Amino acid sequence: MDISIVDVEVKDIRFPTSLKADGSDAMHTDPDYSCAYVILKTNTDIRGYGLTFTLGRGTEIVVQACKSLSTLVKNQKVLNIFNDFASFWRKLTSESQLRWIGPEKGVIHLATAAIINALWDMWARIEKKPVWKLLVDLTPEQLVSTIDFRYITDFITKEEAIRMLRNNEVDKKKREKFLIENGYPAYTTQIGWLGYSDEKVKELCKKFLDLGFTSFKAKVGQNIKDDIQRCRLIRETIGYENKLMLDANQVWDVEEAIEWMKQLKEFKPVWIEEPTSPDDILGHAKIADELKSIGIAVATGEMCANRVMFKQLLQSKAIQFCQIDSARIGGINEILAVYFMAKKIGIPVCPHAGGIGLCEMVQHLQMWDFISLSGTTTDRVIEYVDQQHEHFENPVQLRNACYMPPIAPGYSTKLKNDCISNYIYPDGTEWRRTFN
Amino acid sequence: MDISIVDVEVKDIRFPTSLKADGSDAMHTDPDYSCAYVILKTNTDIRGYGLTFTLGRGTEIVVQACKSLSTLVKNQKVLNIFNDFASFWRKLTSESQLRWIGPEKGVIHLATAAIINALWDMWARIEKKPVWKLLVDLTPEQLVSTIDFRYITDFITKEEAIRMLRNNEVDKKKREKFLIENGYPAYTTQIGWLGYSDEKVKELCKKFLDLGFTSFKAKVGQNIKDDIQRCRLIRETIGYENKLMLDANQVWDVEEAIEWMKQLKEFKPVWIEEPTSPDDILGHAKIADELKSIGIAVATGEMCANRVMFKQLLQSKAIQFCQIDSARIGGINEILAVYFMAKKIGIPVCPHAGGIGLCEMVQHLQMWDFISLSGTTTDRVIEYVDQQHEHFENPVQLRNACYMPPIAPGYSTKLKNDCISNYIYPDGTEWRRTFN
Repeated sequence: MDISIVDVEVKDIRFPTSLKADGSDAMHTDPDYSCAYVILKTNTDIRGYGLTFTLGRGTEIVVQACKSLSTLVKNQKVLNIFNDFASFWRKLTSESQLRWIGPEKGVIHLATAAIINALWDMWARIEKKPVWKLLVDLTPEQLVSTIDFRYITDFITKEEAIRMLRNNEVDKKKREKFLIENGYPAYTTQIGWLGYSDEKVKELCKKFLDLGFTSFKAKVGQNIKDDIQRCRLIRETIGYENKLMLDANQVWDVEEAIEWMKQLKEFKPVWIEEPTSPDDILGHAKIADELKSIGIAVATGEMCANRVMFKQLLQSKAIQFCQIDSARIGGINEILAVYFMAKKIGIPVCPHAGGIGLCEMVQHLQMWDFISLSGTTTDRVIEYVDQQHEHFENPVQLRNACYMPPIAPGYSTKLKNDCISNYIYPDGTEWRRTFN
Repeated sequence: MDISIVDVEVKDIRFPTSLKADGSDAMHTDPDYSCAYVILKTNTDIRGYGLTFTLGRGTEIVVQACKSLSTLVKNQKVLNIFNDFASFWRKLTSESQLRWIGPEKGVIHLATAAIINALWDMWARIEKKPVWKLLVDLTPEQLVSTIDFRYITDFITKEEAIRMLRNNEVDKKKREKFLIENGYPAYTTQIGWLGYSDEKVKELCKKFLDLGFTSFKAKVGQNIKDDIQRCRLIRETIGYENKLMLDANQVWDVEEAIEWMKQLKEFKPVWIEEPTSPDDILGHAKIADELKSIGIAVATGEMCANRVMFKQLLQSKAIQFCQIDSARIGGINEILAVYFMAKKIGIPVCPHAGGIGLCEMVQHLQMWDFISLSGTTTDRVIEYVDQQHEHFENPVQLRNACYMPPIAPGYSTKLKNDCISNYIYPDGTEWRRTFN
């Protein structure tokens, strides 16, 4: 079958989440969860749906970037792309004029993610498999052939990555069966957005305990007194037998992060997430080193710009938990590189999720990791937020606080038509209602 | 005087430089030198002109980003901005929804640079001084008050920066006089763009020797045999009494950079510039460490995303020459932070220039550094390329291979009206002629 991409549609979809302070943290006080949404159309019925998550304002810039990149996808035969995906990925990320405005970071890389995600969605639809199963069924050579190893060969090579997959092939079937029966453990971030009242925090802790959750994450960093009070409240409700993680969303300088976290030591957080600038590898390394003695680990990754930055976070032991994001770095191809690097150095991947479509996507990657690469869920959980799933045709399914493996072909990224007409910005029905 | 910004115009200006391979290197084979150009209009006759450099395609994305950011500038009183410039800078770079698409990197940070540069141009016009003189005449406290120290306080504090300026105040007048008489040393990159023939390279070496240049830079990295031949040709023409620098424009992986440069050792380059990914701090540190014994230094910075990345390049001794760019990181405010950090660790700043308007801008910064901060030109040179200066109302002036201090008020960033109508993309006269 000779499938070619004949058109690329890009849409600006925004949800007015700021009205309820959902998603609010120390840096992002009023997010309107949004996405730049890409539809790849072919000369057949097959399409590919991809997105990158945004916070409202600025989505128009990412939309423009997707449109600019789309000339590189248009008129391509999809089999040519999938047969040499690493080369195509490099073509997209190293286009000789466009790379200046990155390279491989910020708006242009978010747009790359949306397009690459749409291509994986399409590939899985062609194969009639969910993405996790597509990944699991590729041979080690095929899977690794999708990765561009430029700039990371001093840490990991193609051959090493292939070997890692080969070493784990024996029990793949067993793990796939286990996953289909039990799902993959999730944790909730929904107990403590900064904009929430104490009552709401307590109520949400109880709700998620009842749903079977054993790992909880709260936002900190605006005010130490409030943080102490909030952590106490949460610990009183969830006890010390459950896990608590804290997230500062980059609000501190390096020394400040160390001092602040020492004051929250008694609440025994598993990790402090994003203690400082996402670009500060050496800063994270220093924080991790200082907090080690009081048993607090460092986690980051949701705003890590690309595989080169992840490489260094891992090389310098700056993180003890690696938080890949499904829509910031350049789509699955680049994320796979990060999984291999994390595996090499023995750091567990605990994906960032929430937002729009992030839960839908990362579940596929983490399930592949369990079956094909790490072979374990020890010290690993997928972030979960139960918002905006209703807009997707194949929303995530949780059972006993575990993500259940998606069944529908694709990357779970197709929005319902209703959602698009309601939330397209600024002309969607819901937005016109809000503006009036 | 109560000056307010009432309107922001943003223009996409492109020059068809790729037709002659001007500016071609191992990564950017066909650049069309371009810029996103910002005009800040006030309720008076005073305007501010700022730009960020781009390579052609993608300028439309940066233009969109400038437009999105412009809502934060519109209706502001300019005195409020200049009286607390660091706070305004943070407001621009940390806008709670827009920061997601950076933060402080890529398209959104290029747009920040264009707007911030326009504000400095306006400030200098109000003061009726060129920017270098405005900077020199600010008190240490005033100057340092423009810098946002977020994320760098573990390396340098506000107080330290003020002290550095105070310690240098004694001979400022003397150095200013020296500069006005002698100018600031330049080096040329124009002898060896990758797309140039041997004859052209030789001819250009002679031309720039005749003009009094003593430092020359050539592009390398596509083919080792070609590089050896080209370096030999250049050394035969300029001799070993002049300085040669090499620039790989990020084409290598870490190990490859080390091996490649060992093969170019005999040509005694002062530095190898951008040997690998601009994000690879630890990689640069490794390369620097390995090349130290053969006397080759490492330089980078033109694609360094922000002050946090520069901080780490300096902390880890990854660079021996710090190449600030005037339009990639967030304008003068952030660049000043880099100068202070470089000074603290004793690393000379040799600014990146060329492109559109980069020479025009960096000369101001480097002249301020000489007069107020470092107090020396030892081991320091400003890059120079003699292209596209004719489009500016106040183009750079060179005498005996030295940049002469600008006299006209502003940041030397105002384009001629003719230039705009000829090169605005895609409707400018020159573009319509090219398309026909």
